[in-house]
Amino acid sequence: MIIEYDGSQYHGSQIQPNAHTVQAALQEAIYRLTAEKAAVLFAGRTDTGVHACGQVIAFDTSASIPPQRWGLALNSVLPADIRVLESEEVSPDFHPRFQAVLKHYQYRIYRSPQGAVFQRHYAWCCTEPLNLEDMHRACPYLLGTHNFKSFCASGYTTKTFVRTVTYCRLREEGLYLLLDIAADGFLYNMVRIITGTLVDIGRGRIKPRDMEHIIASQERKNAGPTAPPQGLYLLQVDY
Amino acid sequence: MIIEYDGSQYHGSQIQPNAHTVQAALQEAIYRLTAEKAAVLFAGRTDTGVHACGQVIAFDTSASIPPQRWGLALNSVLPADIRVLESEEVSPDFHPRFQAVLKHYQYRIYRSPQGAVFQRHYAWCCTEPLNLEDMHRACPYLLGTHNFKSFCASGYTTKTFVRTVTYCRLREEGLYLLLDIAADGFLYNMVRIITGTLVDIGRGRIKPRDMEHIIASQERKNAGPTAPPQGLYLLQVDY
Repeated sequence: MIIEYDGSQYHGSQIQPNAHTVQAALQEAIYRLTAEKAAVLFAGRTDTGVHACGQVIAFDTSASIPPQRWGLALNSVLPADIRVLESEEVSPDFHPRFQAVLKHYQYRIYRSPQGAVFQRHYAWCCTEPLNLEDMHRACPYLLGTHNFKSFCASGYTTKTFVRTVTYCRLREEGLYLLLDIAADGFLYNMVRIITGTLVDIGRGRIKPRDMEHIIASQERKNAGPTAPPQGLYLLQVDY
Repeated sequence: MIIEYDGSQYHGSQIQPNAHTVQAALQEAIYRLTAEKAAVLFAGRTDTGVHACGQVIAFDTSASIPPQRWGLALNSVLPADIRVLESEEVSPDFHPRFQAVLKHYQYRIYRSPQGAVFQRHYAWCCTEPLNLEDMHRACPYLLGTHNFKSFCASGYTTKTFVRTVTYCRLREEGLYLLLDIAADGFLYNMVRIITGTLVDIGRGRIKPRDMEHIIASQERKNAGPTAPPQGLYLLQVDY
C-alpha cells in the first residue's frame, strides 16, 4: 500500500509501548476490519512530527477483501490523518524497506519574519534572511557516493555510513524553500542534518565550499543543527 | 492590531463560558503582560474552526508598552496558533466592527478524490468533480446590493438582511478552488452558504441562473448547504 499521513499527532511511524504511532493506528484499523493481528512493515521510519505523502507499507493477511478494495476499506476505519492512496497484492517475500532502491524526501522551509500559524506543523519557519545562492552552491557536494557519517545523529550505529545521493536541489515556491533529495537510503536524521547545514550556509555561518570538508571529516559536530521534524516529508519510494 | 489565527483548536472567536476561544486566549495573554482585564473587540466573529489572516482587534490599556512593541510582547505569551502581525495606537472611540467598511473573505476548496490529510483542517475537501464554468457563471448574480436572507443561517435575526457584495470570484490554484468575496458586512454563515450553493451548482444540482431566484426568494431553504467551517478565512478588513 502507498499511504500518506500527517505526522503531527503521532510519536513517529514505529510501534512502541504507550505511544500513539502510525503503525499502531494501522494495525488497529486492520484488526477492526479482519480481527487479524497484522505486523505492518514500513519502507522508511519516520520520527515524531515527520510526514509522509508516499510511505509504502506491507502486511500479511488471509482476509477475503480484494487487494484493490483494501484502500477504501481501511480508510473507512482509519483516523482522518492517515489515508491509503493505493493498494495491491505483492509476493509474500516483498519487504518494503529491504527492497527499496531509491527514497525521495522533501524538506519544506517557510520564510516568514512573523512565524506562521498555518505552516507551524508543516514546515520549518525561518525568520532570518537566507542567502539562496550560497545554499544552491553547497548542494552539488552532496551528490554521489559518500560516507555521510557527518550527517547522522551521533550514537547511531549501522553497518555502513556510505550512501548514494541521486539528486539534491533547492527551489523557491512563494515563501517556501523546498529541498528535494533522493538516495538509495538515508541515515538517521540525515535529511534534517543536511537541511540544518544548508540553512547555516544560508545564514552565513558556514561557507558553501566547507560542505566538502564537512562530508570528508565524518564528524557530526562539523555539520549544522538538526532541522525540526515538521518540515520533513517522505515523498516516494522506488523499487 | 491585525492578527492571524488557525481556528482549528478554538471554539470560535468570541468568549464563552468553559470554551477555548480566540478572545479568551488574547485576554489571558494581555492579562499575563499587564495584569489588566481587557475586553478585546473583534472586527468579525469567526465560528469554530474558521481561520483568520487579517482579523482586526482593539482593546483599551494603560500599560506602558509602546504601541508598535505590543505585537512582539503579545506573541511572546500567546499560543503558537495566534500571531499578532501589526499593532498601532488608535483613537479611544475606534471600534473594529462598527467602523469596518469592507470585509474580505476567502473560502478554500480542495479537490481531491482521496481526501487530503494535510488540507483537512484548512479547506473543504471535495471528492466529486465540479463544473467550474457553471460556478463562474453564477457568481455575478451575487454582486451589488441585495437582501441576502437566503444566505443567512435560519433563525438569525438582524436589523436588515441587505448587504452589498463588491466582488465574488472563483479561481483555480492547483487542486485548490478559491472563492474570494468582499462585502460591507456578512450575515451569519453567509460566505459558507454562498459556497455551498456554488458547489451545488458545480455538482449540477442547481442551475447557474437559479442563483437569481434563490436571492429573490429570501428563503434559506432554496440555497445550498452550509459549507464546513475549516475552508473559511477572514482575510482583510478595510476602514
